[in-house]
Amino acid sequence: MEKIFATIITIGDELLIGQVIDTNSAWMAQELNKIGVSVKRRVAVGDQWDEIWQAIDEESKKASIILITGGLGPTADDITKPLLSAYFGGKLVIHQPTLDHVTHIFESILKRPMIERNRKQAEVPDTCMVLRNEKGTAPGMLFKKDGKIFVSLPGVPHEMKWIMKKEVLPLIPTLFKTASIKHRTLLTSGIGESFLAERIEGIENSLPSHIKLAYLPNYGMVRLRLTASGTDEAALIKEIDHYFNLLKIGVGAYLVVDQDIPMEQVVGNLLIEKKATVSTAESCTGGYIAHLLTSCPGASAYFKGSIVSYDNQIKQNLLHVSEDTLLRAGAVSEDTVIQMAKECRHIMDTDYAIAVSGIMGPDGGTDDKPVGTVWMAVAGKTGVNSKLLHFRYDRERNISLTATNALNFLRMLIVDNH
Amino acid sequence: MEKIFATIITIGDELLIGQVIDTNSAWMAQELNKIGVSVKRRVAVGDQWDEIWQAIDEESKKASIILITGGLGPTADDITKPLLSAYFGGKLVIHQPTLDHVTHIFESILKRPMIERNRKQAEVPDTCMVLRNEKGTAPGMLFKKDGKIFVSLPGVPHEMKWIMKKEVLPLIPTLFKTASIKHRTLLTSGIGESFLAERIEGIENSLPSHIKLAYLPNYGMVRLRLTASGTDEAALIKEIDHYFNLLKIGVGAYLVVDQDIPMEQVVGNLLIEKKATVSTAESCTGGYIAHLLTSCPGASAYFKGSIVSYDNQIKQNLLHVSEDTLLRAGAVSEDTVIQMAKECRHIMDTDYAIAVSGIMGPDGGTDDKPVGTVWMAVAGKTGVNSKLLHFRYDRERNISLTATNALNFLRMLIVDNH
Repeated sequence: MEKIFATIITIGDELLIGQVIDTNSAWMAQELNKIGVSVKRRVAVGDQWDEIWQAIDEESKKASIILITGGLGPTADDITKPLLSAYFGGKLVIHQPTLDHVTHIFESILKRPMIERNRKQAEVPDTCMVLRNEKGTAPGMLFKKDGKIFVSLPGVPHEMKWIMKKEVLPLIPTLFKTASIKHRTLLTSGIGESFLAERIEGIENSLPSHIKLAYLPNYGMVRLRLTASGTDEAALIKEIDHYFNLLKIGVGAYLVVDQDIPMEQVVGNLLIEKKATVSTAESCTGGYIAHLLTSCPGASAYFKGSIVSYDNQIKQNLLHVSEDTLLRAGAVSEDTVIQMAKECRHIMDTDYAIAVSGIMGPDGGTDDKPVGTVWMAVAGKTGVNSKLLHFRYDRERNISLTATNALNFLRMLIVDNH
Repeated sequence: MEKIFATIITIGDELLIGQVIDTNSAWMAQELNKIGVSVKRRVAVGDQWDEIWQAIDEESKKASIILITGGLGPTADDITKPLLSAYFGGKLVIHQPTLDHVTHIFESILKRPMIERNRKQAEVPDTCMVLRNEKGTAPGMLFKKDGKIFVSLPGVPHEMKWIMKKEVLPLIPTLFKTASIKHRTLLTSGIGESFLAERIEGIENSLPSHIKLAYLPNYGMVRLRLTASGTDEAALIKEIDHYFNLLKIGVGAYLVVDQDIPMEQVVGNLLIEKKATVSTAESCTGGYIAHLLTSCPGASAYFKGSIVSYDNQIKQNLLHVSEDTLLRAGAVSEDTVIQMAKECRHIMDTDYAIAVSGIMGPDGGTDDKPVGTVWMAVAGKTGVNSKLLHFRYDRERNISLTATNALNFLRMLIVDNH
């Protein structure tokens, strides 16, 4: 059994001018890893014939599986299909099952007349194996050459995902003998990357060469990831779990969770476990904490609602923050967030409530309260905890950091209460 | 003046196993474009000596500017610095201004003792030009070789951005004579990609070879982007504006906005122009519409607040949706969203209100109301508009589509009202 490598090639000028962020590659890499395929490189090129051709040429020398996304739409800037037809030989022919599917989409779902451009989507090089695309009109294509496979998929995320899941991922293990790759990830908070490294240096140095440790710092927290690869899956799992346990012991009280899940899921799981509910009263985060909590499936078991009080009038009328507090201490103050958290917990009838108020920038800062100043409070049956934080980033990152830190602050209160 | 090409190399196993999404490259590409540098390729490789070495070797044959991010942290998986030192020759030496800066961060900001690992961050190859990093401890590095430049930056987004803005971007025009690149983007809604292409075929075919048109379909809307490159900036602007105006005429009533801005900014700008305010009553989107609106700087001018009524109890108690409606029609119904929108507009004292209620999945669907069923309403002084939509995607995309469509629905009401 040998290690099987893949390269992901994404096609589209929009990637090279920075107009869109590529989320496809991360998802594809995760799925390939699960079936034992290592992604060696990811390459993005523009909608240029020579660039695409060269990328396919070069990457096929480095990997056995070449996955290509993008450039399959019905418009003139989409040149992947004629290019692949030229690259692998063969001529474009109508693929009847695809044409039937495209026709069905137009007649039954879109209820619009089909035009020649749409019909052309059913054309494929006669040298490829057609991959069904139930979610759209552009089919995927698979070519084989010199023991390698080349897969072309549309760039639309849900279409790409459907074809990968239903057609590509089940096929790969029938074509290649893949090695096992296992990951274990834990999340820490309250300790910097270099101090953490110092703390676990002994464990890191004792790792065998086929197990790697990576540090992924983000939002004031550090994730640690172990990656092991080998041929005997059962032995590999036993071995990585051994080192992962050592790591957990080494990290000690800084451990937040021993899974690769975001903070909102950590809090959600904890609330389910404790059969408790939560609500949020948000000023500066404008609903982002509620959004994070409700991004987890099944959030209705613990999340009841939120009052976004962006305007001070809403803080007064709906959250009953006193006019005196707003005048005396201001909207960004300890008194304000304590009143917001208490009242939110009461109005929403939840076990816990989170409240935040701050200045996210770029405007609104003062000498006393510069951009990045945030007060947060968490209320529970034992009372209210509050704290002041200072972030020094841009608006987007300040909002994101505030949300993650507020969720972690709530997590600590829940852990204390139980 | 010749076209200057850049390649962006991102380093990190986390990119190849899909643990993080690369947002750096898009930002870097945007900024490089603004100063006339075309990004030709983006390549991601793992924390492997040979892979990084090879990538630098290969990309330097294809571009004049090689930007490298990642692998500069204080831990063992960060190998970029010794590698660059070996690649470009020279030995690692302490850079005194950097050491002073790192010492300052630990003494005055982190208020923690500095350890050897932190001191090492001030080491750089003596063959490089050091790029200041005011936002962190790892400095950037610039190497020159054969008329090309190689820039190494930390992967932490706000550190990378600071060094790019303050040190790298101002330097590039002094080293290279760059061409002009201009983009114009417009957003359409209500027409599919292929029908749009049919509509503007004549304009597309009349474009000169140095002006390219791209279609970027997303969330039921299609963006069109023109890209022009040339040497005479003033002539180029005149020319691209000419074709952009033709496109706008061609697109006709499907035009949403003739700038490259997201829907929440379109709505925000419109509200500022009309001196109007908005609030949201959100069930299934869980605060995401409020988050989008408040992600725009200056949102306090038009956004007052939101009631996230995830639980039916909150719909009844805070938004006064009648028990009868909830029992008879259900939480996901036209009556419910109409009551939510009206009451939200009243409680929040705003000119407009958006209300949404739906089933985002993966669970909660029924035969009558499958996953993806969404009712939305927008209320204004002239009354309430409502509509039913059906999405067929995953939870994340259903939430995102619901939010964007609700904002567009509000936009149409505001346009009608004025």
